[in-house]
Amino acid sequence: MRVLGVDPGSVICGYGLVEGRLGHHSFIAAGAIRTASLERGPARLRRIHEELLRIIDEYAPGALALERHFIAANVQSAFRLGEARAMALLAAAERDLDLCEYPPNQVKLAVAGHGHADKEQVKYMVRRALALDSEYQLTNDAADALAVALCHLGSSRPAMLIDGVVRNRVATPRVTR
Amino acid sequence: MRVLGVDPGSVICGYGLVEGRLGHHSFIAAGAIRTASLERGPARLRRIHEELLRIIDEYAPGALALERHFIAANVQSAFRLGEARAMALLAAAERDLDLCEYPPNQVKLAVAGHGHADKEQVKYMVRRALALDSEYQLTNDAADALAVALCHLGSSRPAMLIDGVVRNRVATPRVTR
Repeated sequence: MRVLGVDPGSVICGYGLVEGRLGHHSFIAAGAIRTASLERGPARLRRIHEELLRIIDEYAPGALALERHFIAANVQSAFRLGEARAMALLAAAERDLDLCEYPPNQVKLAVAGHGHADKEQVKYMVRRALALDSEYQLTNDAADALAVALCHLGSSRPAMLIDGVVRNRVATPRVTR
Repeated sequence: MRVLGVDPGSVICGYGLVEGRLGHHSFIAAGAIRTASLERGPARLRRIHEELLRIIDEYAPGALALERHFIAANVQSAFRLGEARAMALLAAAERDLDLCEYPPNQVKLAVAGHGHADKEQVKYMVRRALALDSEYQLTNDAADALAVALCHLGSSRPAMLIDGVVRNRVATPRVTR
């Protein structure tokens, strides 16, 4: 399963793609959509939306994962974050991707082993989990996006196993009355 | 000038189109995009986005106006409202419409004469300003959307006059040194 993790922001929107196969995760791509050159909010949202669709079309992930925040500095920043998040939600709906949201501490727990890991710890563990070359420049936004993609692959492992069991069970010939 | 007013919400998104010509405003259309039948947030956003683009393509407004909120019941509702608003911002950017936002009390002031008018007063004044037939069923969401469109036409009147003056001035032959 290939997962696109997104760390939404109206000025910098991080993204990261991870391929997960039976507990082994490989790095596909990561980066950030930058909109600081565009003056107005609507034009920024448009760029984020277009770029996310382009990334989805290029890398064909099966799911989109992002953090679900519960706090914001103030109502205005909650509005701005909601607007940027909406571009990821819309792109997922337009391309028929599964969409999963995780609380920030669940992402940290999945990647760094505890829910209060700081940015550097998360980045370090993301690099390790994906065996990234030490030369590879990983920005904070891309690291956060890869972390939520890894979290999704971690969370979906039991589900995949259960799915496997269920499929085997269905494969056994049965008579339905 | 034709204006599309939008009252965004993730379950009901009101819209209203008003044509303004030299202080006379005519009603073009109004309604609401309803998404309650769709279970998930991303599918709701997709429907709002698609419908807004369809409305813009059908009625060809030159500007999109919406309320700029400063308060929300809580952070979660600010996120939801931000997501729904983002569909209007995106649609405006995609169709190259001017986008204007007005604080709620400015909309009320423009339509009902004072900044603390209640929903019924706003609705009554919208009906009157647009000479709506008493048979015409106007929902609250559509009334709010028409109100912000009327507010935009009111606010842009002085700008249009100034623009006219400036244009006349530019029309006078001048030598630039």
